[in-house]
Amino acid sequence: MKIGIVGGTGHIGQGLAHRLSHNHEIILGSRDIEKASYASECTIKALKERGIESMCSGAVNQEAVDKGDIVVLSVNYKNLESTLDSLTGFENKIVISPINPISKGDHFYYDPPADGSAALAVKRLLPENAKVVSAFNNIAANKWKQLDDELDYSVAVCGDDHEAKKIVMGLVNEVSLLKAVDAGPLAMSSVVESITPLIFNIAKYNDMKDVGIKFI
Amino acid sequence: MKIGIVGGTGHIGQGLAHRLSHNHEIILGSRDIEKASYASECTIKALKERGIESMCSGAVNQEAVDKGDIVVLSVNYKNLESTLDSLTGFENKIVISPINPISKGDHFYYDPPADGSAALAVKRLLPENAKVVSAFNNIAANKWKQLDDELDYSVAVCGDDHEAKKIVMGLVNEVSLLKAVDAGPLAMSSVVESITPLIFNIAKYNDMKDVGIKFI
Repeated sequence: MKIGIVGGTGHIGQGLAHRLSHNHEIILGSRDIEKASYASECTIKALKERGIESMCSGAVNQEAVDKGDIVVLSVNYKNLESTLDSLTGFENKIVISPINPISKGDHFYYDPPADGSAALAVKRLLPENAKVVSAFNNIAANKWKQLDDELDYSVAVCGDDHEAKKIVMGLVNEVSLLKAVDAGPLAMSSVVESITPLIFNIAKYNDMKDVGIKFI
Repeated sequence: MKIGIVGGTGHIGQGLAHRLSHNHEIILGSRDIEKASYASECTIKALKERGIESMCSGAVNQEAVDKGDIVVLSVNYKNLESTLDSLTGFENKIVISPINPISKGDHFYYDPPADGSAALAVKRLLPENAKVVSAFNNIAANKWKQLDDELDYSVAVCGDDHEAKKIVMGLVNEVSLLKAVDAGPLAMSSVVESITPLIFNIAKYNDMKDVGIKFI
């Protein structure tokens, strides 16, 4: 598959490139083509050092959308609306939202838009026939690029398009030891997104690092 | 410690009695003293069969509150307000809320009161010096009484009183293989409560049974 990553120079973008580009063509997008190319070269190099050939290229975000069968929105919630405003061509694409709207006072807390969740905001902002699926929300940013560390977590996947959700769950299951679970309709994405500030707090209050979750 | 359980004939009440009454004095409360006594006898019998002596007695709910150093509110959310209206004497007690306000359409969803969570509603309904702590929210009801099954899960504990939270975390860690984690202030209880409908959905959509969670 071709996977376009909007904001592909961030942790999750680079992480997905590192962990999927041996099997899939990854188009790492950025507003800045230089940054995208550099991130792509880093991925190719990291995998080459392990004797693995990778299919990864840098591009502007619009090209990542245009080329991707699946488009991952690896952007901060605060940049979501302006980023989507600047892009077109999402019609009929599978669009993955790993976005968590989080704020911080004396503790981290979930700070969703009026839509109910970031994924539901994505659905509102995109054409109606875009197939929005939330996934990869609860994986610590630091863990993504450490290729020697397996990612041994559950990934709750939400979406209203059954086929799209199945494809995304298949993709999740290709990444390290991640195990996808169907968490129901996109409306449930609020709970999954809100787990991220919860695990940030759990890390903070229990002196733990890079906390993740497993459904067992 | 003396642990009073309001609504002690339910799954979590009976479960806590089964799993803590060898070490702590459990007062299983109910509106119906007959039911409470029967539940207490069941616990005593179940432990006796395993050669374990248990300290468990049936009582009316008010007695469970009066005698408990810690009071567990093992009630359905829809009965919370009427139950608390009928009881007094919570001043300065540690009060544990394992309550999850859940509704169901085509899927289970979190349906909290205007307070933000059931635990925050408990805080509003009780005297200001009651020390409300949320815990035991995400453990499958069926699992509690199966004494031969270990409960190998994480328990996210929320509360604003540091000492009370520590005592509750200690209690959690005495139950089977449960591992308490400090999940921050009581305001975070909304996220922890909302995980319960999420795991109900995960069980439903993935053909799993009695799903629980671990923070790792």
